Amino acid sequence: MRDIGPPEADLRRRVANRILDIYASYGYEVIETPALEDLAVLVGSQGGENEKLIFKVLKRGARLEEELQPGAGPGELADLGLRFDLTVPLARFVANHLNDLPAPFKVARIASAWRAERPQRGRYREFPQCDIDIVGEPGIAAEIELCSATLDVLQKLGISGPNLRLNDRRLIRQTVERYLGSLDQPGEVYIALDKIDKIGEDSVTAELSGQGYDADDVRRLLDHMATAELHPDNPVEADLGQILEFLRAQGFSASFDPTLVRGIGYYTGPIFEVAHPDVPYSLAGGGRYDGMPARFGAPPLPMCGFSIGFDRVCEMVDRLLFTTGGPKIAVTCATEAELLRCLAVARERRAKEPTAAISVVRRARNVRKQQEDLRTLGYTDIIDGAAFTS
Amino acid sequence: MRDIGPPEADLRRRVANRILDIYASYGYEVIETPALEDLAVLVGSQGGENEKLIFKVLKRGARLEEELQPGAGPGELADLGLRFDLTVPLARFVANHLNDLPAPFKVARIASAWRAERPQRGRYREFPQCDIDIVGEPGIAAEIELCSATLDVLQKLGISGPNLRLNDRRLIRQTVERYLGSLDQPGEVYIALDKIDKIGEDSVTAELSGQGYDADDVRRLLDHMATAELHPDNPVEADLGQILEFLRAQGFSASFDPTLVRGIGYYTGPIFEVAHPDVPYSLAGGGRYDGMPARFGAPPLPMCGFSIGFDRVCEMVDRLLFTTGGPKIAVTCATEAELLRCLAVARERRAKEPTAAISVVRRARNVRKQQEDLRTLGYTDIIDGAAFTS
Repeated sequence: MRDIGPPEADLRRRVANRILDIYASYGYEVIETPALEDLAVLVGSQGGENEKLIFKVLKRGARLEEELQPGAGPGELADLGLRFDLTVPLARFVANHLNDLPAPFKVARIASAWRAERPQRGRYREFPQCDIDIVGEPGIAAEIELCSATLDVLQKLGISGPNLRLNDRRLIRQTVERYLGSLDQPGEVYIALDKIDKIGEDSVTAELSGQGYDADDVRRLLDHMATAELHPDNPVEADLGQILEFLRAQGFSASFDPTLVRGIGYYTGPIFEVAHPDVPYSLAGGGRYDGMPARFGAPPLPMCGFSIGFDRVCEMVDRLLFTTGGPKIAVTCATEAELLRCLAVARERRAKEPTAAISVVRRARNVRKQQEDLRTLGYTDIIDGAAFTS
Repeated sequence: MRDIGPPEADLRRRVANRILDIYASYGYEVIETPALEDLAVLVGSQGGENEKLIFKVLKRGARLEEELQPGAGPGELADLGLRFDLTVPLARFVANHLNDLPAPFKVARIASAWRAERPQRGRYREFPQCDIDIVGEPGIAAEIELCSATLDVLQKLGISGPNLRLNDRRLIRQTVERYLGSLDQPGEVYIALDKIDKIGEDSVTAELSGQGYDADDVRRLLDHMATAELHPDNPVEADLGQILEFLRAQGFSASFDPTLVRGIGYYTGPIFEVAHPDVPYSLAGGGRYDGMPARFGAPPLPMCGFSIGFDRVCEMVDRLLFTTGGPKIAVTCATEAELLRCLAVARERRAKEPTAAISVVRRARNVRKQQEDLRTLGYTDIIDGAAFTS
């Protein structure tokens, strides 16, 4: 986990708002759900590896004491967990509020998720996710709209050169079963295949051999996946072609990528990621996960979503797009009496000039350090209190 | 805990941004800290009753297994906790980043806090706090600036009629010790005195008698507290007078309230709350808590903060101040082909009219309910797909 100080936190707030404003222009509505969900909501949600990384919250009071009697196991000590993504909570939200929601329901959210990963560079245990989802649209209009809006956001943040990679879980399953036979636990195969970029074909082959698949069959599968092209006579592939055609007609770069798998279990149709030539990881990822609300007692509604890696995108935005416009004025005062006079003058000035930021502060003993710090915070004018009130 | 759907969540986002923009005009910078803190940071922070309400996060992996050996107690099962306010994490942040921060350091934050309270109407276990703090200013310029900015925010949100109540922990302590003798555990006395409004003078008297104080002494103390006035020959009271004078000169309503105590242990000087005639609870509260960073190994810096009850304020804002300005257009389509045509037209239209929100959706089977839902979400125009593209 990490602290984020100014001016970085200010940039992140501005970026988040710009993103939500753009999504609002597509008709995505914001919602709030609690950070803590019942563990039963989070566990068994096909969240893949992420599910193992849930931060669990200890039961409280009498309920905890009960569990601490001899014989109780660690699974029962906790009743709540911090969400590991925004997708599972959204499906739970949809199931709980079904009658109050429009059909289709288009949602945008920027909020934290938590995963108890081993700390490593650039990976945090608390991190913001930035998701849009469409609930209730069964056709590729959902994929097209999600992909267009996400690529539009990246463009409007000043990030040029992204490419959308597209594949489909149904197509992957067809291909995998052609080479490896019918799948009982497709999730495990997907998690292995998803690692090709990270660990290479040989290690993936070894992992799948370990799961009982024939190594030669696996190699033939990987060869096929590296070279496959779209065949429009397969309805699934025809849909993918139509999505690509639409995105390209809007000027976006998008391509079929038969090696794209994604590691999460719950996808049921098209899956997509945004790659960028400057970075080795994807900027955004998503897919269709029809039926998830059924886990929470609702009808098996179609759902489809796209998630931007907020931290990654914040590092790549064009910062010039996020300046405030007004002057940022620091008034440094030598005495308390001067401070009080300047506070009153600052109030008048703010009323006249609403885009100005005016901070009235006591002059620090180390004047030079104070001035440097104020410049770092983006102050354009540093004025002596006496000059400010005269 | 609770879900918040549109359009309420959208209003809350707009209110939060308006507040942070106003605070930015006073020079408050935003920061981010993790929701989870080490339990050692949260426990023993003089957070009063709130400290008992920490959600504790279970240790993970081998560390958890170790604790589950016979003989381990519940205190050792957890290593992290969800913050119960934003003040303690700020003091920890200040101590960790002392050399990178300007002096004084002015911070604004809107972020969630968590308390494991028994569920009751209008009280949530996850709720946003909206705080401003000044670190490093020892004089009443801090109190004046915090109170001015907070009252200014309420005014600009369209909430008229608030009154600031002001008192000082040093003054309370002087008064209490005059009637009850020297205090070993002032925190417990403050928690009792803080309940006068809620449980009445008789119950408070009973509670303090239970702590060993003479009931007649307590009654005389309460009588005094109900009627005391400011005496400017006492330096503490002279400061309070100056704060009030400054706020009134700016047109704010503010008054000395000798019965204001606040239930938290860490205050060391002036304390303040904002009352409003329409509601039985305060809209904002805060005070000076000098020295807190010393708990985390830093020098005992002066700190002073003011926290707005974000949920309460959202219920009272003038909603007309938070409309978007642009039209909100829903295009309902009968077929997938029509959806795709309309998505392309919508993209052109958004480029020409950036303030417009345009949502292209499949026409629902229940057309009337869909239209009602769209109106509830604030859609101003509902257009047939065929008409939109022609």
